[in-house]
Amino acid sequence: MARTPLPPLLYADTGTSSDQLYFSRVEVHDPFIAFGAGRKRISVQSALEFGRVKKAGTFDAVLPLEEWRARAQARWPRRAVGAAEIIAEVARAHRLRAFRVADDFPANLYLKLRALGLRLELANGPLFPEREVKSPAEASALREGNRLSAVGLAAAESALRAARPKGRFLVTRGRKLTSEDVKFAVESAILRAGGISLHTIVAGGDQACDPHDRGSGPLRAHDLIVVDIFPRVVDTGYFGDMTRTFLRGRASDAQRKLVAAVRASQLAALKAIRAGVDGRFVHQQAADTLIAAGYETRRTERGSVGFIHGTGHGVGLAIHEPPRLSPTVSMKLKRGTVVTVEPGLYYPGLGGCRIEDVVQVTDRGTRLLSNYHYEWEFR
Amino acid sequence: MARTPLPPLLYADTGTSSDQLYFSRVEVHDPFIAFGAGRKRISVQSALEFGRVKKAGTFDAVLPLEEWRARAQARWPRRAVGAAEIIAEVARAHRLRAFRVADDFPANLYLKLRALGLRLELANGPLFPEREVKSPAEASALREGNRLSAVGLAAAESALRAARPKGRFLVTRGRKLTSEDVKFAVESAILRAGGISLHTIVAGGDQACDPHDRGSGPLRAHDLIVVDIFPRVVDTGYFGDMTRTFLRGRASDAQRKLVAAVRASQLAALKAIRAGVDGRFVHQQAADTLIAAGYETRRTERGSVGFIHGTGHGVGLAIHEPPRLSPTVSMKLKRGTVVTVEPGLYYPGLGGCRIEDVVQVTDRGTRLLSNYHYEWEFR
Repeated sequence: MARTPLPPLLYADTGTSSDQLYFSRVEVHDPFIAFGAGRKRISVQSALEFGRVKKAGTFDAVLPLEEWRARAQARWPRRAVGAAEIIAEVARAHRLRAFRVADDFPANLYLKLRALGLRLELANGPLFPEREVKSPAEASALREGNRLSAVGLAAAESALRAARPKGRFLVTRGRKLTSEDVKFAVESAILRAGGISLHTIVAGGDQACDPHDRGSGPLRAHDLIVVDIFPRVVDTGYFGDMTRTFLRGRASDAQRKLVAAVRASQLAALKAIRAGVDGRFVHQQAADTLIAAGYETRRTERGSVGFIHGTGHGVGLAIHEPPRLSPTVSMKLKRGTVVTVEPGLYYPGLGGCRIEDVVQVTDRGTRLLSNYHYEWEFR
Repeated sequence: MARTPLPPLLYADTGTSSDQLYFSRVEVHDPFIAFGAGRKRISVQSALEFGRVKKAGTFDAVLPLEEWRARAQARWPRRAVGAAEIIAEVARAHRLRAFRVADDFPANLYLKLRALGLRLELANGPLFPEREVKSPAEASALREGNRLSAVGLAAAESALRAARPKGRFLVTRGRKLTSEDVKFAVESAILRAGGISLHTIVAGGDQACDPHDRGSGPLRAHDLIVVDIFPRVVDTGYFGDMTRTFLRGRASDAQRKLVAAVRASQLAALKAIRAGVDGRFVHQQAADTLIAAGYETRRTERGSVGFIHGTGHGVGLAIHEPPRLSPTVSMKLKRGTVVTVEPGLYYPGLGGCRIEDVVQVTDRGTRLLSNYHYEWEFR
């Protein structure tokens, strides 16, 4: 018989902790106490947040922080009472003596609560393993996230098409088109559509060979330009995550071969995904396709080249969450899991290419949650 | 003689940990290892981040994660090697056996490192107390943050002035002006100016009485509208934080009296600030001014009314950081500290008013780091 898990205890804000947002379903921007008690979900809120959180109706009970701080102070009159004492007092009133906490639970609070006699069990993995499997409502929120990504890709494509190759650069309204221009076009289009897009990548040529270089300065004609957009839906907190690699001008044969290999690799990975398959196996299919096409991954003096990252990662209320499609970890894909599929190749001198979509895992394969065409060479 | 503090150890990403951003001065969006060794600052980065972080030049040394994972694996061949083992191996190579860590250091990693024989000392307060005092470069980054806030306030003011009172509502281009419209105007103006503004508040009437209600739906003519804008400068990560309370139409006497009292309270707080003064005393000056003007703070069945929050908070790489100007804590203001000064009054039926600026503490008073006018009634 499976042991009933201990009730969860959280102390975090919802902006930095996706567990707290998952549990609370209401945004609060300073750390607060939330916990389970039987089937109930309870939180403690300051006067500043109390009314709004109560109105949101996502907790079974909202306790006023000021009142519970006073109760804790009365119990420990000589101490500077803080979160630990308040949690201990609230737990006592609810007859709770043990909780499970996330691996990233604050260490100092962890030690203080133990000293106050609470038993805390670390999750040793996700605090809410059920987060990995997405409900239909979550899948639809993720689809909306990717709709926002596609809005951004369309804005980037328009900006590139509106510019004209002139010598080595792209020129628009008499001046050089920059990564910053395209990022602004992307991010403002997403803002208007109901999302927030941070850290958008618009990186051309060798800049794209550092996959987390966001890109800067003038974009060049005839260069591969990686556009990676991962916005958050303001209303729900779920993410989209899509990448296309565009080129304005004329592609060389080497560029065309590179892009075709990456797309073939993505299709191989997509074909390998279904419930029960290991993420490592999916990555291997993507990697094998690239090797078969003649693309080597290796370490050089200037850094690594080739297929230098994993094939994908889970996405939800966090942009990176379990599982992974990676050579280094074995993780069976569950039905309902949502992952990115994003192989890429990076060779300084030639440039980088990455193509990324998001799918939900089904028993027989995948359900695509992202939608944008694969045309890439804009002459 | 003061004991030399232990070198810091961090394991966090720079998006959620302002300590990590303060220490690293380069954005990395997945958790990574960083630590001090003598006067050197060292980080461990995966192939995905290695080149970019090295190029940023903010660390004395950047170690390749893959290589150090392999070394840790060789030392513990039977374990699934993770951050703890990699840190232990890197620490051994640098002859380090003890670190100080932040109070919010991940609990699980804390316990694992101790089990591996490292000595960890919790900060029991800020990990980098020196963060509280801002250098001239930091003050100038904060000034830029507030310039972005002012760009947002100007956009909000324009949107309100462009709308016309019609019956109870504000009408623009034939339809009701909403909080969402004004927030979009604010956030897109800030995006264009080089910032990211999340969670902007444009809350009219009773919505503003819940100070963290962001506001939604049609804005009303002749209502107080609280506009609170706290953008982050993309290039540096520093925040601005300014609030004005606007009204489109004609203010009532009660509204005029309320706004005047809040502004008088803000001036009283500003006058009280200088190096060495207690933040609690500053708050008391703001609160006393409101009481003298006849504004009572009390708890009602529907929630608290009056001056229901602290007068201000430190701002820097985090939007809320030490010190506080609050009735509940005693904190001496240091020279160079940067704080918000933002008294407010909230009475459902009448509405809310908050006025917020940002100042740096000097020996003799304050230096204003924010700049926007105090006109508020747009007829």
